[in-house]
Amino acid sequence: MENGNTHILLIDCPDEKGLVYRITGVLYRHHLNIIRNNEFVNRDTSHFFMRTEFAGNFNPGALCDDLGRDLPVLSRIRLVDMRKKNIVVLATKEHHCLGDLLLRNEFNRLASNILAVISNHEVLRSLTERFSIPFHYLPHEGMTREEHEAGIISVLDAYGPEYLVLAKYMRVLTPAFVTRYPNRIINIHHSFLPAFIGANPYRQAYERGVKIIGATAHFVNSSLDEGPIIHQGIVPVAHTHSVEDMMQAGRDVEKTVLARALNLVFEEKVFVDGNKTIIFD
Amino acid sequence: MENGNTHILLIDCPDEKGLVYRITGVLYRHHLNIIRNNEFVNRDTSHFFMRTEFAGNFNPGALCDDLGRDLPVLSRIRLVDMRKKNIVVLATKEHHCLGDLLLRNEFNRLASNILAVISNHEVLRSLTERFSIPFHYLPHEGMTREEHEAGIISVLDAYGPEYLVLAKYMRVLTPAFVTRYPNRIINIHHSFLPAFIGANPYRQAYERGVKIIGATAHFVNSSLDEGPIIHQGIVPVAHTHSVEDMMQAGRDVEKTVLARALNLVFEEKVFVDGNKTIIFD
Amino acid sequence: MENGNTHILLIDCPDEKGLVYRITGVLYRHHLNIIRNNEFVNRDTSHFFMRTEFAGNFNPGALCDDLGRDLPVLSRIRLVDMRKKNIVVLATKEHHCLGDLLLRNEFNRLASNILAVISNHEVLRSLTERFSIPFHYLPHEGMTREEHEAGIISVLDAYGPEYLVLAKYMRVLTPAFVTRYPNRIINIHHSFLPAFIGANPYRQAYERGVKIIGATAHFVNSSLDEGPIIHQGIVPVAHTHSVEDMMQAGRDVEKTVLARALNLVFEEKVFVDGNKTIIFD
Amino acid sequence: MENGNTHILLIDCPDEKGLVYRITGVLYRHHLNIIRNNEFVNRDTSHFFMRTEFAGNFNPGALCDDLGRDLPVLSRIRLVDMRKKNIVVLATKEHHCLGDLLLRNEFNRLASNILAVISNHEVLRSLTERFSIPFHYLPHEGMTREEHEAGIISVLDAYGPEYLVLAKYMRVLTPAFVTRYPNRIINIHHSFLPAFIGANPYRQAYERGVKIIGATAHFVNSSLDEGPIIHQGIVPVAHTHSVEDMMQAGRDVEKTVLARALNLVFEEKVFVDGNKTIIFD
Repeated sequence: MENGNTHILLIDCPDEKGLVYRITGVLYRHHLNIIRNNEFVNRDTSHFFMRTEFAGNFNPGALCDDLGRDLPVLSRIRLVDMRKKNIVVLATKEHHCLGDLLLRNEFNRLASNILAVISNHEVLRSLTERFSIPFHYLPHEGMTREEHEAGIISVLDAYGPEYLVLAKYMRVLTPAFVTRYPNRIINIHHSFLPAFIGANPYRQAYERGVKIIGATAHFVNSSLDEGPIIHQGIVPVAHTHSVEDMMQAGRDVEKTVLARALNLVFEEKVFVDGNKTIIFD
Repeated sequence: MENGNTHILLIDCPDEKGLVYRITGVLYRHHLNIIRNNEFVNRDTSHFFMRTEFAGNFNPGALCDDLGRDLPVLSRIRLVDMRKKNIVVLATKEHHCLGDLLLRNEFNRLASNILAVISNHEVLRSLTERFSIPFHYLPHEGMTREEHEAGIISVLDAYGPEYLVLAKYMRVLTPAFVTRYPNRIINIHHSFLPAFIGANPYRQAYERGVKIIGATAHFVNSSLDEGPIIHQGIVPVAHTHSVEDMMQAGRDVEKTVLARALNLVFEEKVFVDGNKTIIFD
Repeated sequence: MENGNTHILLIDCPDEKGLVYRITGVLYRHHLNIIRNNEFVNRDTSHFFMRTEFAGNFNPGALCDDLGRDLPVLSRIRLVDMRKKNIVVLATKEHHCLGDLLLRNEFNRLASNILAVISNHEVLRSLTERFSIPFHYLPHEGMTREEHEAGIISVLDAYGPEYLVLAKYMRVLTPAFVTRYPNRIINIHHSFLPAFIGANPYRQAYERGVKIIGATAHFVNSSLDEGPIIHQGIVPVAHTHSVEDMMQAGRDVEKTVLARALNLVFEEKVFVDGNKTIIFD
Repeated sequence: MENGNTHILLIDCPDEKGLVYRITGVLYRHHLNIIRNNEFVNRDTSHFFMRTEFAGNFNPGALCDDLGRDLPVLSRIRLVDMRKKNIVVLATKEHHCLGDLLLRNEFNRLASNILAVISNHEVLRSLTERFSIPFHYLPHEGMTREEHEAGIISVLDAYGPEYLVLAKYMRVLTPAFVTRYPNRIINIHHSFLPAFIGANPYRQAYERGVKIIGATAHFVNSSLDEGPIIHQGIVPVAHTHSVEDMMQAGRDVEKTVLARALNLVFEEKVFVDGNKTIIFD
């Protein structure tokens, strides 16, 4: 994480000649010093992505106006500060990801402020409240999915988080919910080579004798386990490991992968490009 | 690999009390010295697996008779020497796995003798013959799958290999072919998290922006990409990598994973247990 | 972790013929059922190691007597239950390993009970007490090393832990202290390829541009960063990472490696063999 | 690897405001299209690095003149084509890295042409000549180091390679030799956590019971095993592995790491920055 005087400019637009020249020209005329610059052109779609860290005193409105004048009409220009993101964490019963995030949040190792934790069960209340974070128990029993999500949305609206983190939240979200937070919901789930479809994938992985357990952190777009991948990791396992051993290995890699993915996103190092990500790490 | 004086006893049978005691008792009465011993009981199926390396002079027939007398009726008892296995490699057009195996074979880094290479294309002839290994070109055009496999079987019968290695052999094998070589065909294929079904998985992986490319070596039982997994590995990739870069990363991990898997099998460290493996490494 | 009815027999002794036969014979005559068995002979030193998990009702005294009668004079025989180990954690200022252990302890993911935390600083008190674990602040200022350690020993004596875990405890322990807890002190430290001697290894690693940061968990015998290695792990880094980024990557791999090592030790899967370990995982 | 119409501009110079603007301005005025751009500023030394892939027709002399006019006096400007590099490989007796490079070279998987192999032993002649690459046997017995290196230099001068690859070349090179090829000699060697100083590091690693074996590819500056690191990799090992098993694991990771490092260098993705590298992958 960089210090407070660093600013980040994020631009994406249809590719054309001279984009870097024009953008850096605007920064130069505003007397700003580029500390780090990354560009990438998706050659399949001819789309341009650029992330610039710069330092100096400037007028944000004037800078964005000047950039807008010099860039294609369809450009997306975002100017962000290097500051912590406000987030709400959704969880169910498993503690491993939530606990790790609470610890990192407490000791400033996550580029975020956890505003609240929402869960459809009570079991994680004690853990959450130990870190003086509000815990909202929103049971789903006897409710339609829409009714339950309406309750979540009402809590979220009170906090106004920039990102939602699904830390082993085991409920499927409706498309209507997901589209409220485009590229702002991050999920973690176990991954296997090969993949196992259907119930109890760890048992299937155990019965097939996989030698590797993985985890994938990704944005949630429509379905719970799909969307642009942010980070992945693996851990080796062996035939001597029980299903429970494999699940524990999976939990350990899940929490590490989720924390890494969140820091990439919160430090503004991730662009979403269709169904994939561009990581400027 | 151990030296020539070491012998290996491989036993599997329904689990019951006293198996290790009885087996090691027989070895003791034959004045044999156990160098290394591994057992594993699959508690789901109550099946017992044991691999013993031992040294000493002995009468193999008498040893097996004594073991057979002391063990359950359904026991499988195999007594093998630490010697190279005779293999035939099947390939198509890609050179990376075949080339690596030829190099290891030449320099005694693979616990095997490659007797011959069979391919449905000519392109790997020059590479194979550089290592003085016979190359059999068996084109499949204008043939039924059965006719083509009949040609392969006829070549195989002439060599009598103990194992077939599919080093990027891109043809699907019929069940009739596969059942001729139970747990004796080893295949390597790319793996992804998540898995991609259908044509051109690398392009799908690229379009989804995966961060990891994997490879899986496994026994072929019925379908080409299934069967008990022997070894798996991965390599990280990034959004800057083209489809071709990802394929090259995949090739590198494939050849490493295949060689490792083959040495485990040829050194008699692998039991097949239903649809999974037990690795006594 | 196995359930409470499982017992573990740990034996090591000079190697000789028939050991497995004699040991399993004793178990057989006591009507015990072997669930899992591992042996290893260190051929450099001709020393035999065996770990047996078994189930059944038995008289521990009679079993050990019978084993002692049948085994070489110099044998070490240990009969342990599958139960959590009592531990005390020593830390200094860094929270990442301690926090992770407290979480795992709280949710029964560590095969141990943390009895207390001892630190030479106050900063981790709040974290520790949030998990209702006693925290002992033992400052070292104005004390000789021996005086400080006498204070620690006095606290330890009150708790009688089976293992001490150094969770980023940054003080060098005296040989006199270490010899009180032979193979019972476990430490975690960062590791690099190549290694960097002297002060501020992360800065040195940064300046050399290493591509990998590692961590090593090991028993402490004499010097703080040596002793038999239990587990190691690594994480990739890049030139874009600052010294602080590398330190954060190092912290993440340290906490994962330490937790894995502790579970191996506490589940009685680790033998110390001179300056190395034998891991029966 | 990109196609033949792509050009690469490599610039490094003391950092100052407006560098990216000025450089991309020159490219824009020459009607060139930037495909991919990477910059990095080493903030410790205030030095700027930039790699640009671009396409289009242009006059190289005029482009470099214009860049030179617009950039600081101390700038290093290199304009290179995406073409294979001419290399000479030095080896001793071990075949694993050389064999892998010969295979990749033969099948166009290494961004290079191997012009010749030089060795101080005869054993790798047959392997090399199988791939129709000239093999030069230059024994060192009865010679001073300088005399031996004079022989090597004379062979090298005949080929004029752009890079020398030490593929397990086991002789120490003199500073006088190394300074002839600044940042143009690439070496591979095994790495351990912790490092082992002195003779037979694999035996030391075995006796310490390391759980990971690594490999480091780096430029050779002064001493054989130091210089800016290009790539590193690791492979897990266990107590069951003999010294020879560990050496084989080390060889496998060495060849993979070396090939990856070479492709990074030959595709012009590596800047040397003092004693470290900047990798624009």
